[in-house]
Amino acid sequence: MKKNLQNPSIINSSIRKAISDDEEQIWSILKPIIRNGETYAIRKNTKRNTAIKNWMYGKHSCYIIENDTKVMGSYYICPNQEGGGDHICNCGFIVRSGLAGNGYGRLMVNHSLNLAKKMGFKGMQFNFVVSNNKNAINLWKSVGFEIVGRLPLAFHHPTDGLIDALVMFNNFSKE
Amino acid sequence: MKKNLQNPSIINSSIRKAISDDEEQIWSILKPIIRNGETYAIRKNTKRNTAIKNWMYGKHSCYIIENDTKVMGSYYICPNQEGGGDHICNCGFIVRSGLAGNGYGRLMVNHSLNLAKKMGFKGMQFNFVVSNNKNAINLWKSVGFEIVGRLPLAFHHPTDGLIDALVMFNNFSKE
Repeated sequence: MKKNLQNPSIINSSIRKAISDDEEQIWSILKPIIRNGETYAIRKNTKRNTAIKNWMYGKHSCYIIENDTKVMGSYYICPNQEGGGDHICNCGFIVRSGLAGNGYGRLMVNHSLNLAKKMGFKGMQFNFVVSNNKNAINLWKSVGFEIVGRLPLAFHHPTDGLIDALVMFNNFSKE
Repeated sequence: MKKNLQNPSIINSSIRKAISDDEEQIWSILKPIIRNGETYAIRKNTKRNTAIKNWMYGKHSCYIIENDTKVMGSYYICPNQEGGGDHICNCGFIVRSGLAGNGYGRLMVNHSLNLAKKMGFKGMQFNFVVSNNKNAINLWKSVGFEIVGRLPLAFHHPTDGLIDALVMFNNFSKE
C-alpha cells in the first residue's frame, strides 16, 4: 500500500497540453532522468533550456499529467519521420522521481495512443528503448507494442555497461 | 557496357570532405532523390537550403566522391543518438541520378565504415531503409550490415503504397 500512500490521488489526475508555465515542473522531472542517464540517450550534462526545448517544443506536442497543480509526468508526441514516414508517430514519457509504478505512465501512454489515432497516425514507434528498462517494456507490451528490432550493444548504461536497445512498434491497423 | 560508357572513370574517383563550394553539386544530386520520395523519409517539397543544411551541416560531417571536379555522390556521418547511444553512428548516401550500380555507393560506404572506426564508433545503424530498395539493401548486406528490425508499413512509397522499412546495423565488434 506504500505506493498509494505516496500518491493517493492518481484517480483525480488529469492530462492536458503543456504550457510554458509548466516548464519548471517538467524540468524538475526531466532533470534527474537526464542526469542519471539510464533510460534516455540524452547527454547527461544537457542544460535546462536545451532539454526543455527538445522535450516541449519544435516538432513535439507536449502534454502533462497533474494532480491539482502538481505535475506528475509528461509526454511528447511528434511524427517519427517526415515525408513518406510521417504517418507513424513517436512519443517520449517521463514520470516524477519516486512515482514510478503508480499508473501515471499507463494513463499517459493510453492518452497518447488515443490522441495519435485522432491525429491520423497509423502507428507509434519507440526508436530506442533501453533493454534493461523492464517496467517500461512491460508497460509498452501491455498496451499493444511489439519489439520489432534489437540494436546490439547500442546503449552505454552507467552501471550495466554496453547493453542492447530495442525498437518497439504499435501498429494501429492491426486492431 | 553502357554503365562504363556513362561513367568511365570510377577508378579515378576520390573521396574528400565536402566544402560549401560543393553545395550546388550536392543539391543537384539530392534534389531529384528528395522530389521522387522513393528512398528517403524527407518531405518531397523540402527547399534547397533546408535540404542542404540537413545533409551537410549540424551534427553531420559530409563527404563527396568526385571524378575530376564532378561530384558523383555524397554521404554524411553523425552519431545516431546522443548520450549513452553516441558510440553508434548513422550515415546517409546519395549517388547522382543515372549512376547507380557503378560502384560509387560501395566506395562511399567502405570509406564511411573505415572513417567510423577511426572516429571511435562501435557500429553503424541505418534507421529507415525502405524495404523495396533492393540494390541498397544488398549493398549494405555485402559490407556487413544485418537487418535487425522491420517497421511494419512505416513508409508510404509513391507508387507501391504502404511498405515496410528496415533497421540495419553493422556491429564493428563482431569482426
